[in-house]
Order: sequence, then C-alpha cells, then structure tokens
Amino acid sequence: MYRSRLRKLEGLAEEKNVCGALIVSASNVFYFTGFKGGFLLYSRNVGFRLLVPALEYLRAYDTVRENALDDLVTVVAYKPYGLPGELKLDIEGEEIVEGKAIDAIAKFVGKGCILLTDADSKQFISELEAKELKLQDASKDIALMRALKEPWEIERMTEAARIAEAALNEALANLEPGVTELEIAAIIEREIRVRGAEDHSFPPIVAFGKNTVYPHAIPSARRRLEDGQPVLIDLGAVYKGYCSDMTRTVDFGGVGDEFTAALRTVIDAVEAAIDAIEPGKKIGEVDAAARRILEKHGYAKYFIHSLGHGVGIDVHEYPRVSSDNNDELKPGMVITIEPGVYIPGKFGVRVEEMVLVTERGPRLLTRFPRELWV
Amino acid sequence: MYRSRLRKLEGLAEEKNVCGALIVSASNVFYFTGFKGGFLLYSRNVGFRLLVPALEYLRAYDTVRENALDDLVTVVAYKPYGLPGELKLDIEGEEIVEGKAIDAIAKFVGKGCILLTDADSKQFISELEAKELKLQDASKDIALMRALKEPWEIERMTEAARIAEAALNEALANLEPGVTELEIAAIIEREIRVRGAEDHSFPPIVAFGKNTVYPHAIPSARRRLEDGQPVLIDLGAVYKGYCSDMTRTVDFGGVGDEFTAALRTVIDAVEAAIDAIEPGKKIGEVDAAARRILEKHGYAKYFIHSLGHGVGIDVHEYPRVSSDNNDELKPGMVITIEPGVYIPGKFGVRVEEMVLVTERGPRLLTRFPRELWV
Repeated sequence: MYRSRLRKLEGLAEEKNVCGALIVSASNVFYFTGFKGGFLLYSRNVGFRLLVPALEYLRAYDTVRENALDDLVTVVAYKPYGLPGELKLDIEGEEIVEGKAIDAIAKFVGKGCILLTDADSKQFISELEAKELKLQDASKDIALMRALKEPWEIERMTEAARIAEAALNEALANLEPGVTELEIAAIIEREIRVRGAEDHSFPPIVAFGKNTVYPHAIPSARRRLEDGQPVLIDLGAVYKGYCSDMTRTVDFGGVGDEFTAALRTVIDAVEAAIDAIEPGKKIGEVDAAARRILEKHGYAKYFIHSLGHGVGIDVHEYPRVSSDNNDELKPGMVITIEPGVYIPGKFGVRVEEMVLVTERGPRLLTRFPRELWV
Repeated sequence: MYRSRLRKLEGLAEEKNVCGALIVSASNVFYFTGFKGGFLLYSRNVGFRLLVPALEYLRAYDTVRENALDDLVTVVAYKPYGLPGELKLDIEGEEIVEGKAIDAIAKFVGKGCILLTDADSKQFISELEAKELKLQDASKDIALMRALKEPWEIERMTEAARIAEAALNEALANLEPGVTELEIAAIIEREIRVRGAEDHSFPPIVAFGKNTVYPHAIPSARRRLEDGQPVLIDLGAVYKGYCSDMTRTVDFGGVGDEFTAALRTVIDAVEAAIDAIEPGKKIGEVDAAARRILEKHGYAKYFIHSLGHGVGIDVHEYPRVSSDNNDELKPGMVITIEPGVYIPGKFGVRVEEMVLVTERGPRLLTRFPRELWV
C-alpha cells in the first residue's frame, strides 16, 4: 500500500534531480505512511524519517509497525515548545532530537539541499531557508498522485458512503413536525460513529425551509420542522481515513410545484453530469453538462457554485469540478457531482453523488434514491 | 460586540501607518464580523468589505445584518473557479465582482497599498504581490486581541463547557463491559448537539486500557471496555462559535495502585498549576508549577507535551502554555491546564481544566469531579 508510494516519492526526487522531500500536510503524510500528522522527510543520504512531536511518538511508531514500514521509515521524536528534561518513551532504539521540528529536519538534511515539498506556510518556509535548506514546490504532483485512487481506497470510500447512507436513513425516519435541525444532525453524528466511522467528513448540514437557501447552512437548535418544508441534508463519514460526501433534498409533506420542478431539474442535471463523465474528457465539460440542463429551465443564475470536487483523504481535494478546469478526467478519480439551485427568500435544492471514474465510464459510489418524499 | 473590534483594526492600521488590512483566517474573520469565512478587507478609502464566494453571499449578508454591522461592512460576492453567467442573488444593492477573491481585493485597494494581514500562504501572498499589493504581518497583534475575552465570550465558553460536561455525564453512565470506544464517542457527539452545540471542538478522544498511552488516541469500533481499565475522555463543544475543552481519566472497576497514584499526582499538578495563575506572571511558570509536582513523584519524563493552550474561537489558540513562553498572563485569557502522564505499555492519565485569568486570580470554567470511579 504505502511502500510503493514512498518509492514514487523517491523517484520524483530523483527525476527532479533534488536531494530529498519534505511532506508537511497531515493528509499527505497520511497518504504516504498511514499516520496523520508530523512531517515526512526523505533524503538520499538517510532515507525516510517520520518526524513527530514527542507526544505523538508512540502512536506514530506503532502505526508505522502496523503498516509494515518499520524497515523503511524511522520515526523520530522532536521536542516542540521547549519541552524540558529527559523524555521516556521506553522504545528500543528510540530516537529523540533536541529542539523543534525545524531542528530535526535540519539534522537529517545537508545544507544547500533542495527538498520537494507541499509546504505553503511563508513563516515555516523562511525558517527552513534560515537553516540553508531550499524548497521546490511539488504540491500539484502529490495532489495528482492522490487523485488516482487504488482499489483498497475505493473500498474504504464505498464503506464510508454506506455508513453515511445508513445514517441518512435514520435521519429521514426521524423527520417529524417539531424536530429541530440540530436534533437531526445529532442523529447523524451518532449513527455514523455507531456504524464504525471514526469521524464525520464535515459537520452535517441539516436545513429546513428557508434555511435551505444557504448552500452552507448551519443547523440550529431553534429551527423546527413544519409540514410543507424542504429538508436539505449534506453529510459524510470518514472510514479508515477516507471520506464520503452526499446530499439529498427531501420534500416534507408537500412543499409545492415550484420546489418539485426545481428538484426534478437538479436531478436531471446530476444525471447529465454523470453521463458526461469519461476518461480523457476535460473536467470543465462535466460542469458544463449540468449547467446546460439548469440553463434550459431558467435556473442557471441560481446555481452559484461549481459542480463538485475530488474526495478522498480530504473531503475536498484535487480535482475541482469547475468550468475553468481544463485538466483531464482519469480512471481512479473520485469526484462529487452536486448541482444546486438556491432561490433567495424561497428554497434551496441540492443533490450530490460521489462518482468513480473508470476506464468504462462513471461508477456511482453513493446509492440512495434521489427523489424523496417523507 | 464586533463594532469596537473593527474600530480597533482601523486604529491598528492607522498606528502602523498603512492604508488597510486583509484578514483571511476564517476564525479571525469571525472574530471581527461574526461570519466565519471569506476575507475581511479594510482600506482607508472604501472602509470595510466582507468578500465571500458567491455561494456564501446570502448567508454572509444576513449575518452582517443580524450583527447590526450593515452600515459599516459591505458584503461583496466574488466568483471563484470561473463561475460563468449572471448570478442572481436578489438582494437590493447586491455587489458582485467578476473574478476571484484576489481580483475583488485588488479592486478595492489602490496599487502600492500596504495591508496588515494574518495571511501566511506563500502562494496567496505572491498572487497579491503580483497585483502590486504589499503585506505586513499582523497575526500576533490579532492573536493578542483575541486572547483577551470579553464577558459575552466567556458566557458562550461557559455554556460550551456545561454542554460538554452534560455529554460526559451521559458517556460515564454508559460505561459498561463490552461497550466500544466509538460507541461512547457516538453518545458524546449526540449529546453535545442535542444540548445545543453546533459542533464538537474536535472529534472526542475516547480511549480504553492501553489505548490511553497515546495522548491523541483514536477511538476504535473494535476496542471493548473491560473491568480494571482506565478510560480517558477528552471532549469539547462549540457553542455560538466558541469552544470548550476538558479531559477526565476514569478508573473503571479498579485499575490498580500504580494508576491511582499517577491519577492523584496529575490532579495535584492541575491544582498546583491553577494556583500558579495570576495576572502578570510569565506563562512558562504555570507549566513549571505542574511539572515540578510530576517531577517530585518521578513522572516528569512521562509528561511529553506542554501544559496547555489558549481556547476561544479555535480550540487551540494563543497563548501556548509551555515552558518556553515568556509572555505574561493577562486578565481575560482562557487557558487549559492539562498535565498528563503516559507510561508506555501500561496506561495514560490526563486531567484537563479550562481556566479564566481574572484580576483576582484563576476562575475555573469547567466544573466536574476530577477523581472518578465507575
């Protein structure tokens, strides 16, 4: 799993003719090692080091062993924030560096060395430069690697989708006049964890009535459901480090013809976008396919966001599914398709699916009815 | 509430003799406006603009009105990701800028203008520089403003603590042999939302037995509680944008003398640290007070993190309560006190309180028994 990724990173450094790499985003470190946090350092001289603050040492050490990487990756603890005294980790061959992360990095890399990196913090980069280390941005290369999912990643994302769908089912079963948005959110939170997800992908969006006009509505403890209101629920689960993401808009007790028409058009837009998915196509064309349907029915001006985004270790990751993205769809990408129509003062509708791009076209990872009446 | 903060930001720009300010971190924008997201721009010529992507326009607009800032702050929508066509927001006097955030910023600020900022993204900063805008870091100034809580902020944080404590009570009532860590986490997630919190401060840490040796343990769906195990629970709620943070370690069915001794020492360290809190004192001395107690009992080498951190809009914010922090404690600061002892292969113990610094000394915002046997 991780071994071939580490070899690829090594290869990338060789290809770009630099002496190493420094991975700093927690999600990227997770992609390469299965441990979320710290810094992954590679240098031609010393190989791979996973640098973590002392408090994370034991968990990182055990994770690297569980992932059978201990012959390839050495875990090293550093002491941030002037942690005083002798630390006791009681691990055979434990390696503790005096000083902060930056000192640990400098210790393992020769001066003047150029490191590929995903770091974007100006302050962090200038601290590294003060240590006479040079950096070369490789964040796009890493984003592209992450975008092409392996089968075991697809499996985890599918399970994350199944968990979210079960939670959505529970949420729908609890929709009744008087219930609050936050109570429905609470049910979702409980259900996704009870079913084995370690976290939500993001705090669930549960919006009733006019609150649905905000694409990123915040659930309230005061807003109570009434008959004839739309209910928008956007939720996701994280299973073994991988996210799902899905939205449904429900007709609760008969919202009215205008709502039904908008919902049906949004569903048509979802289908048109999914049909447009094929390897080699420009990503922007998928956005355009959905937007055309909405335009035909006069809703285009109410579709105020891009069509979707990549999903994986992060709930939002490369590629963005937007009209200005000329990159190509590739097999292994998992993207969301989530057209929406938000009519100020009236209601909002969004339907979101998670789709895998395969050699033979799109494959839905979410499986839940799109037209829902409760 | 927010008005005086905006005036302070204005004053800071004047004091530093620059022509404006650009606030980019979502938490800082929230601090100044009550809306979380987008960019807050101030320039001497045009006053305050809250720049948000089109999909956030309506929510930002309504929030600014609810917070009675509409005479002072104009909300402006920009179109990220090549959003095509005419957008319809149906708001009187709606202002939509063609282009991305960076274009909107450049539109309102004269070339050569210097802006105070909290931005740290190298890429974002170089895009601004390409538009002939200059930036001057003011992140520490803003962190210092945020660190001194106003009474209404303390009230929200106190409510966030009450909600978390009620959730902890429910969690403890459900501890029984066979229950999994994730089931207990699920109960916490449900309870904090049912009681009115819009989110958790962080995914709750629930660790049984040897999983307690990891300060940042991840709850598992497979790990089941057994008699004679320690249970560590670290949780927090977000109430109206403000976080709480608290930890307890519970003796479930008699862990043994070594655990009891460690727990009692950690509680002594909490008390010593709280006693050390007074305005004007160096923050590092509070860390030292706790560490001395642990040292006396031979646990110092197992205390592998700093003592605590500021809490507020973010669950971790300035100041860090660590031995190397020579800044002074000031009335209005809210910090955590969370000494821990983690003995590899055996168990971990942590007890965490949230404390307000007042003119007259420390005031506990968390109120929950520290010695817990279930």
